[in-house]
Amino acid sequence: MADQYAHGSDDKRPTEIPALRWEEPPEGPVLILLDQTRLPAEEVELVCTDAPALVEAIRSLAVRGAPLLGIAGAYGVALAAARGFDVDDAAAALEGARPTAVNLAVGVRRALAAHRGVLARGGDEREAAVAALAAARRLHREDAEASARMAGHGLTLLDELLPGGGHRILTHCNTGSLVSGGEGTAFAVALAAHRAGRLRRLWVDETRPLLQGARLTAYEAARRGMAYTLLTDSAAGSLFAAGEVDAVLIGADRIAADGSVANKVGSYPLAVLARYHHVPFIVVAPVTTVDPQTPDGASIEVEQRPGHEVTEVTAPRVPVAGIEAGGGILVAPLGTQAYNPAFDVTPPELVTAIVTEEGAVSPVTTEALAELCARSRPVTMS
Amino acid sequence: MADQYAHGSDDKRPTEIPALRWEEPPEGPVLILLDQTRLPAEEVELVCTDAPALVEAIRSLAVRGAPLLGIAGAYGVALAAARGFDVDDAAAALEGARPTAVNLAVGVRRALAAHRGVLARGGDEREAAVAALAAARRLHREDAEASARMAGHGLTLLDELLPGGGHRILTHCNTGSLVSGGEGTAFAVALAAHRAGRLRRLWVDETRPLLQGARLTAYEAARRGMAYTLLTDSAAGSLFAAGEVDAVLIGADRIAADGSVANKVGSYPLAVLARYHHVPFIVVAPVTTVDPQTPDGASIEVEQRPGHEVTEVTAPRVPVAGIEAGGGILVAPLGTQAYNPAFDVTPPELVTAIVTEEGAVSPVTTEALAELCARSRPVTMS
Repeated sequence: MADQYAHGSDDKRPTEIPALRWEEPPEGPVLILLDQTRLPAEEVELVCTDAPALVEAIRSLAVRGAPLLGIAGAYGVALAAARGFDVDDAAAALEGARPTAVNLAVGVRRALAAHRGVLARGGDEREAAVAALAAARRLHREDAEASARMAGHGLTLLDELLPGGGHRILTHCNTGSLVSGGEGTAFAVALAAHRAGRLRRLWVDETRPLLQGARLTAYEAARRGMAYTLLTDSAAGSLFAAGEVDAVLIGADRIAADGSVANKVGSYPLAVLARYHHVPFIVVAPVTTVDPQTPDGASIEVEQRPGHEVTEVTAPRVPVAGIEAGGGILVAPLGTQAYNPAFDVTPPELVTAIVTEEGAVSPVTTEALAELCARSRPVTMS
Repeated sequence: MADQYAHGSDDKRPTEIPALRWEEPPEGPVLILLDQTRLPAEEVELVCTDAPALVEAIRSLAVRGAPLLGIAGAYGVALAAARGFDVDDAAAALEGARPTAVNLAVGVRRALAAHRGVLARGGDEREAAVAALAAARRLHREDAEASARMAGHGLTLLDELLPGGGHRILTHCNTGSLVSGGEGTAFAVALAAHRAGRLRRLWVDETRPLLQGARLTAYEAARRGMAYTLLTDSAAGSLFAAGEVDAVLIGADRIAADGSVANKVGSYPLAVLARYHHVPFIVVAPVTTVDPQTPDGASIEVEQRPGHEVTEVTAPRVPVAGIEAGGGILVAPLGTQAYNPAFDVTPPELVTAIVTEEGAVSPVTTEALAELCARSRPVTMS
C-alpha cells in the first residue's frame, strides 16, 4: 500500500537483526519492519507511516511472534498519535489485526493508556504522543532486557547441567530476534552459549508446516555466525539415538499454572524423545507467558489451523533461482483433509526446567511457578 | 526419450492401482509404469519398449520402492529378451540404475538366470525370452501373494491387540501398491482393515523430506476410498497425547538379526512415542527384509542423503493450479548445511511385532526371527 514501501537491504549485513525500529527522519516518524515473509531469500524493510500500513504488515505476517507483536502494536499507537491520526481508531484496528494474539492487544493498550493518561491529566496531544512513544519504547526495552536476563539464566543452567562446555543444542521453531524486542527466548540462550564459545552445534528443526526453523531460525543462526545444521523434524530422533543432542531448548506460547507448556507443534515429541534419552528439555519464556488462570495442560485450547498449510507448501514471497513463487504448491491429493494443530502441550513431568527473566524453575511444580510469578508480577506491572 | 511415451490416465479411475504391468499389443511387448513423479496431481503411464527407457524411469523415480524395483528389473530383462536386444547389456544397465537398491539387482538376476538356464540347456532365444518373462511374472505373483498374506496376518494381529474393531492406524512413508507387486506391506494391512469395515481412520504422516506420505500414501488411500487424514510428522505427538492412535504400522528397509528395524527416517520417533503412550508399534515386511548378516542395529549403515532435499521443497513435476513447478523451492538460507539421514533404526525392544508373510513374531527376539527365516527360506529360494 501507499504508506508501506520497501527498502533494499544494507549490503553491510550487520550482525544485529532488528525486527523493528522507530526512526524520526525529517519527513516524520516511521516504524521500520524487517519483512519476515521474504526471509531468508531477501532482507527487505517495510516502512510504515501510519497504523493501517502496520495492520497490513501484521496481517501478512511481515511482523510476527508474540512479544514482537506487542511492541509493534504499541509503536503503532505511538505512530498514529505522532502523526495526528485518530488514536482510538488506530488502536482498535491494530488490536483486531490478529485477534488471537494476546500480546498484541496488551501492547496496544499499554501505549493507549499512556496516551489517555496524559490527556486525562490535562496534557495536550503532543504530550500524549510523547507519552505513547515512551510507553512503546519502555515495552521494547523491557522485552530486550528480559531476553538478556533469560539468556544469562539459561546459559548458567546449561553450564550446570552440562559441565565441560561444547553444547549441542536442538531447537524448534523460531525464538530469536525475529519474535522479540531483544534476542528472543530459547534462541537467545543458544546465542549466549555461542558468544561464550560454548556452542558446539545448534540443531535446527525445520518446523513444519510453516518452516519457521528453516526460514527464520536458520537465517538468524547464519547471520550470527553460529555453527548450525538444519534437519527435518522427524530426523531429530536419529540425533538423539546417536547421542548428538546435549539439550533441547524451546520457547513457549503459554505455560499453565501446573507447568504444562503449550508451544509450536512438534515440541511434545521432542520432550518424549529427550526423556527417553535422558537429555534435558528446557523451556525459555518470559514470566508473562505463565497464565495462572489456566490450571493445567488439559485446559489449554489448541488452535486447529487450516489444512492447506499441510497439503500445500508455500514458498517465500520472492522468485528464487528463477522459479516464480508465491502460491501454495500442492503436495497431496485434492480434497485431502489434514490434521494441523498449531501447537502441542508438554506436561510438566517432561520439562527439566523453565527459564524466565526472573530465574529458572527446576523441577517444574505449581508451587515453584507460583512463587516465581509472585516475585515478578510487581515488577512487570509497574 | 523416444521409447518412453506418456499415456493420459483413464477417466474411469479403477480402484486397483497397478504400479506396473506387462502388455503385449500387436506392435510388441511393453512394460507400462504409473509415473510416480507426477502423483498425486496426475496419473500418467509410461510405456517402456526397451531397457534404456526403464533405466531412465528407475533413475527418475517414476518407478520406486524396493520390491517393485525388483519386479521392474526382472520385467526389464524379459523385455530386452522378447524384443531381441542384448540381454546381458540390458541386465547390466538395469542393475546399475540404482546401485544401492538390492532388490533391483536380485530381480534382474532372477530373470537373467532363467534366460541363461534355457540357453545353457540348448534352448533358443525365443524359449529363453519366455523363461525370463515367466521368471518376472513369478516374482510379481510371489510379491503379490506375500502382500496378501502379510495383510491377513497383520489384520489378525490387530484384531487380537485391539479387540472391538474401529482401528485408528498411524502410518509413515509409502508402503502400498506403489512399492509392491501387490498391495504392499503396512498399507496392505490398513487396506485389509478397511475392507473388513474395521478401519476407523488412517493417519498419514506426510514424511519429510520427500513427502511420500502426502504424495503417495494419501493418493493410495484416496483412491481406495479409505478414511484418512494427513498430518505433519511432528503432529503425531498430539495424536498420541489425545489418545487418537490405536496402532502404528510401518514397513522396513532392513531388519537386523536381533530385530532392529531400519526404516524411513521418522519411524524411530514414532516408536518412542508409541512406547510412551502404550500403543502397539507394528512392522510389516517380507521375510527377505530380515538380513541375518547384519547382527544388530549398530551394524546398519545409515545412508546420508543430499541436504537439498531439506533446504528445498520440490514440487511434483507438473504445473498445479497455474503455478509453474518442477524445481526446488529454496526454504532455507543459501549455504545451509542439512542433516538428512535416509532412515533411522528402531531397536527391537520398541517393536511390538514384526509381521511377515510367514506369520508374526512377537515379542521380537533373535531366536524367534531366526526360526521364522529358517521356516521360510526353503520356499523363497525355490
